[in-house]
Amino acid sequence: MRNILLTIAYDGTDFAGWQRQPRARTVQGDLERALAAVCGGPVAIEGTSRTDAGVHALAQRATLRGDFAIPTERIPVAVNGLLASGEGPMKIGAIRVTAAEDVPEGFHARFSATGKTYRYRIEAGPAPDPFERNRAWFLERELDCAAMSRAAECLIGTHDFKAFQAAGGNEVPSTVKTIRSIDVAERFSELPCGPDGAPRREQHIRLEFTGSGFLYKMVRNLVGTLVEIGGGKRPPEEMKAILESLDRTKAGPTAPPQGLYLKEIYYDHE
Amino acid sequence: MRNILLTIAYDGTDFAGWQRQPRARTVQGDLERALAAVCGGPVAIEGTSRTDAGVHALAQRATLRGDFAIPTERIPVAVNGLLASGEGPMKIGAIRVTAAEDVPEGFHARFSATGKTYRYRIEAGPAPDPFERNRAWFLERELDCAAMSRAAECLIGTHDFKAFQAAGGNEVPSTVKTIRSIDVAERFSELPCGPDGAPRREQHIRLEFTGSGFLYKMVRNLVGTLVEIGGGKRPPEEMKAILESLDRTKAGPTAPPQGLYLKEIYYDHE
Repeated sequence: MRNILLTIAYDGTDFAGWQRQPRARTVQGDLERALAAVCGGPVAIEGTSRTDAGVHALAQRATLRGDFAIPTERIPVAVNGLLASGEGPMKIGAIRVTAAEDVPEGFHARFSATGKTYRYRIEAGPAPDPFERNRAWFLERELDCAAMSRAAECLIGTHDFKAFQAAGGNEVPSTVKTIRSIDVAERFSELPCGPDGAPRREQHIRLEFTGSGFLYKMVRNLVGTLVEIGGGKRPPEEMKAILESLDRTKAGPTAPPQGLYLKEIYYDHE
Repeated sequence: MRNILLTIAYDGTDFAGWQRQPRARTVQGDLERALAAVCGGPVAIEGTSRTDAGVHALAQRATLRGDFAIPTERIPVAVNGLLASGEGPMKIGAIRVTAAEDVPEGFHARFSATGKTYRYRIEAGPAPDPFERNRAWFLERELDCAAMSRAAECLIGTHDFKAFQAAGGNEVPSTVKTIRSIDVAERFSELPCGPDGAPRREQHIRLEFTGSGFLYKMVRNLVGTLVEIGGGKRPPEEMKAILESLDRTKAGPTAPPQGLYLKEIYYDHE
């Protein structure tokens, strides 16, 4: 039986998340429908990460198993044509298969993954860009990225991240995970002066979390807590106590899904 | 009577264009509804450019006349709150009023304008980005930007642009317009190698047209013709003959609206 690993980018705005649902438009649902047409019969794919409604992906991965005629390298073009809405020259969909490759039969999109990187985008300042709506968390006040970086340091390494696990998540065998790196990057863009003549700017923040794996909503709960620290509501030193409390109620709120991007998934074979 | 000049940015994707229509969602319609709530009674605004369905604006302008209590500098925040969809931290709309200023009573958003700049975006290559759909014209093959630049030279200056006027447009007193500049800029982004191991890249093209004014669909007809030249279907030298023919059927097709951005409008008072 063939086993094909797909790489998929999507704008999650119009989807009720990755996972197939009977009465909602989902990424998996749309993909399986297009793949079925291309493969000549029903297919089921297994995604690496069940991204929530509104969450985006730059490179989600999924395996497609079965026996079908289409050559692997032709799958992206064929599927993308079906996923595209619009007409003629504008035919491009909210979901795009960017690569397809043959992998060994024992390969599993989720269980074979050795790590992931998530990106989180925050736009802070007086002039949110309408073209970025649904694609970032918008805040009025600038954040102190140095404080956020400092607070993130104690999260690096192997820890029990129970304090950052969503309340409603599935029972998992262990809440111990390894975070390999957390990068906090900021850049500024100058804006025209305000009505009072004062200079203004917009702060663009990008957080990237790389780790062995993440608990349900863990990245968004980490971001929510880091934003409280960046906004001066809590000192950076408090992060360690929150982590060690193993208590969700001690951490900050869950950051909105619109700012989250599944950026990369790592496998040993690559 | 107060006369207030608004600057407005919008993602045109979800709108049937600028101009108010009884049974379609339009930018003017949404704005007037929000402004009426803020001004305490019905208002009518006059926009500078009647952008078509799918066309975007970085800085559309419109005048709002009337006697109402709200101070000018408070209008943007008040209106933007009403225009925002979504909840809490994600409250940001597809339309955003970025500035409001008092102008003399005789000032008119359209007739006082001395010029405009339109931007047109083209994405060419094997890997269209789902996040850019509805925001550019997607082409599979790269274009020769040097040929497009060369072809654009003969358009600079004052000419009768009848060959680039849309067939269905309103009767206008004159089809003579002045184009001050046409800039063609390209940049490339490297992509992972294709299935055949060959290196790949994506070409990002930005055309900017600055002029005294433009006929209906003139920018999109110029872009459609320039793309035929950039794609090698016509030599750059042909542009002059097309311009001089005054015949719409001699020019290229109309470029899709999704790539067009009203970038800036010029007034003498600024």
